[in-house]
Amino acid sequence: MIDRLVEKIQKTHAPIVVGLDPMLGYIPEQITKKAFAEYGETLEGAAEAIWQFNKEIVDHTYDLIPAVKPQIAMYEQFGIPGLMAFKKTVDYCHEKNLVVIGDIKRGDIGSTSAAYATGHIGNIQVGNKTYTPFGEDFVTVNPYLGTDGVKPFVDVCKEEKKGLFILVKTSNPSSGEFQDRLIDGRPLYEWVGEKVAQWGADCMGRDYSAIGAVVGATYPEMGKVLRKIMPKSFILVPGYGAQGGKGADLVHFFNEDGLGAIVNSSRGIIAAYKQEDYAKFGAEHFAEASRAAVEAMIEDIGSALERNR
Amino acid sequence: MIDRLVEKIQKTHAPIVVGLDPMLGYIPEQITKKAFAEYGETLEGAAEAIWQFNKEIVDHTYDLIPAVKPQIAMYEQFGIPGLMAFKKTVDYCHEKNLVVIGDIKRGDIGSTSAAYATGHIGNIQVGNKTYTPFGEDFVTVNPYLGTDGVKPFVDVCKEEKKGLFILVKTSNPSSGEFQDRLIDGRPLYEWVGEKVAQWGADCMGRDYSAIGAVVGATYPEMGKVLRKIMPKSFILVPGYGAQGGKGADLVHFFNEDGLGAIVNSSRGIIAAYKQEDYAKFGAEHFAEASRAAVEAMIEDIGSALERNR
Repeated sequence: MIDRLVEKIQKTHAPIVVGLDPMLGYIPEQITKKAFAEYGETLEGAAEAIWQFNKEIVDHTYDLIPAVKPQIAMYEQFGIPGLMAFKKTVDYCHEKNLVVIGDIKRGDIGSTSAAYATGHIGNIQVGNKTYTPFGEDFVTVNPYLGTDGVKPFVDVCKEEKKGLFILVKTSNPSSGEFQDRLIDGRPLYEWVGEKVAQWGADCMGRDYSAIGAVVGATYPEMGKVLRKIMPKSFILVPGYGAQGGKGADLVHFFNEDGLGAIVNSSRGIIAAYKQEDYAKFGAEHFAEASRAAVEAMIEDIGSALERNR
Repeated sequence: MIDRLVEKIQKTHAPIVVGLDPMLGYIPEQITKKAFAEYGETLEGAAEAIWQFNKEIVDHTYDLIPAVKPQIAMYEQFGIPGLMAFKKTVDYCHEKNLVVIGDIKRGDIGSTSAAYATGHIGNIQVGNKTYTPFGEDFVTVNPYLGTDGVKPFVDVCKEEKKGLFILVKTSNPSSGEFQDRLIDGRPLYEWVGEKVAQWGADCMGRDYSAIGAVVGATYPEMGKVLRKIMPKSFILVPGYGAQGGKGADLVHFFNEDGLGAIVNSSRGIIAAYKQEDYAKFGAEHFAEASRAAVEAMIEDIGSALERNR
C-alpha cells in the first residue's frame, strides 16, 4: 500500500491528503435541508448530509489527489448512523481509486489492538465466511502503550499489505506537555520516532516502509530532526492551513527525493467556500471552492519544494 | 456520576467491574448456533451472538456489581453490526441500573476530542433536536496529546455529570517502554498522574473527582506511588486475573477509606466456564460460572482489603 501511495503521489504531483472531517456547520444548507426533508432532524439525517457533502467534494477533487483522510471522530459523534456514513465514504473513495487513511488514533493492549487492526485494516472470520469491517488502507495509531500495543497493527499491515501512521509529534498546542519532555537528553518524540523506524524496518516497500509517522506541520524544526531519525518512514503532516502551517515550513518533512511526506488539510479544503479567498463560489458551488483550494495547496507545497531544490 | 459509582460500590461491597469484552471464541455454541441460524454467518450474526452472550452474563451478575466496562474494540472489529451490539449492551446495562465505563481509549487534538466526547458521554444537536449517540457514563482517554486533547472530555464531564479514566500506567508488558522513562528523575507515568490530579481538581464529587486514572494491576508498586500522587482520583485497575494481578497485590491502589479503586476483570469473568475452577458449570451454564467467578473475585479483593486494615 505504501508503494501505491508513492505512485499516486508521483502521478498527481500532489503530496497532499484531503481530510474529510465534516462538521454540520460546514455543510451548505441546500444539502442539510434535503437530508432533513428525507430523514428528519435525526442522526440519520445528519449522516445523510455528511455523506452527500463528502461525495460532492470527492467528485470534485479525486483526480487531483492521491488520498483522503476521514477523521472517524466526526462520524462517531453521530453514533451508528454517523459510522455508516464513515463506511460509505471509505467505500466510495475506493471506487474513486483513492488511498484511504482512517484517522482513528486507536491503541490499546495487545489483544485489543489486534481487534482494532482487524476492524479497520484487516478481515474477520465469522463461521466459514470472511468480512472486511471498515476496510481503510492506512490507520493512525497512538504509541503510548509501547511495542506490544503497536505490534498487532504492524502484523495486520504485513499480512494485508496495509500501512500505519504512528503519532510521534502531534500538531496541537499542548503536544509538548509530554511529547517534548527530555529523557536522557532527548525529547520523548525522538524516542518514539526511533521506535517507529524500528517497527517499520521489516515492512519495507520499494523505498519507504509501510509504517509511517504523524508529525505536525506546526513544528517544522522537529520535523527536520524526525525526518533524519526515520529516513524510511513516510510522514503524515497535519496542521497545514487552518492550524497555521504553511508550504514553506514543510520542506524539511520531505527527503531529497521530493518524497517522504504527505500533508493533510481538512477545514481549509472542505470548508474553503467559507474563506474570503473562495467566497466567490458561494455555498452553492462549495465543491468547486474545495477544488480551487486543493489546486492552491498543491501549488503552495510544490513551489516550496521547487525553491528548496 | 462518580458519587453514583461510589454509592454503588458501597452498596454492593464490590469494588469491581466486569469487562464485557466478548470474543467469538468465548461464546458457547448454543448461542452462536442460534444467532447464525437467524442471521447467517454474517457480521449481524456475530453481533447477535455477542449481544445474547452479554445479556445473559449481565442478567446473572448485575445485582452483585456496580459497573461494567465494555471494550469497544471487541465490537468495532465486527463493523457497524458490532457497534450496534455495543450500543445495545450499553442501553441494557443502564436498564439494569449499572454504571457503564466505555473502554474507548480515545484522544486527539481539541476539536476532535470534543467530537469523541460528544459521541460517547455527551449529546449532539441535529437541527432543533438533541440525541445521545452512545451514552456511556465514563470513558477511558489517552493522554499522549496533553491538556488540550483531554480538556474537551473534561468539559463534557462537567456539563453532563459524567466521568473519565485517563491512561496513566497501563497493564501490558511493554507499557514501560515510554511510560517508565525518567524525566527530571521521575517516570513519565508520574507526570501524567500529576496532570490527572490537576485536571480533576475542579470536577470534585463528594470525596472523589470525576476524573480518574487507569493503572494496571500488574504494577502494584507503581500503584502505591500513584495512589499518593492522585489522592482524589478513582483508579480503574485492569489486569486482574487473566493478565496476572491478584487481590493481595491491589490493596495499595485503595485509600484508607477502602475506596478509590475499582478493579476490572474481563476474560476471568465472562469466559469463566472455560477455566478448570468453573468447568463443572459447562458451556450451557456459562453465565452461572460468571456469577460464581464474580463472587470469588469480590471475596478475593474484599479479604485482601480486610487483612490490610
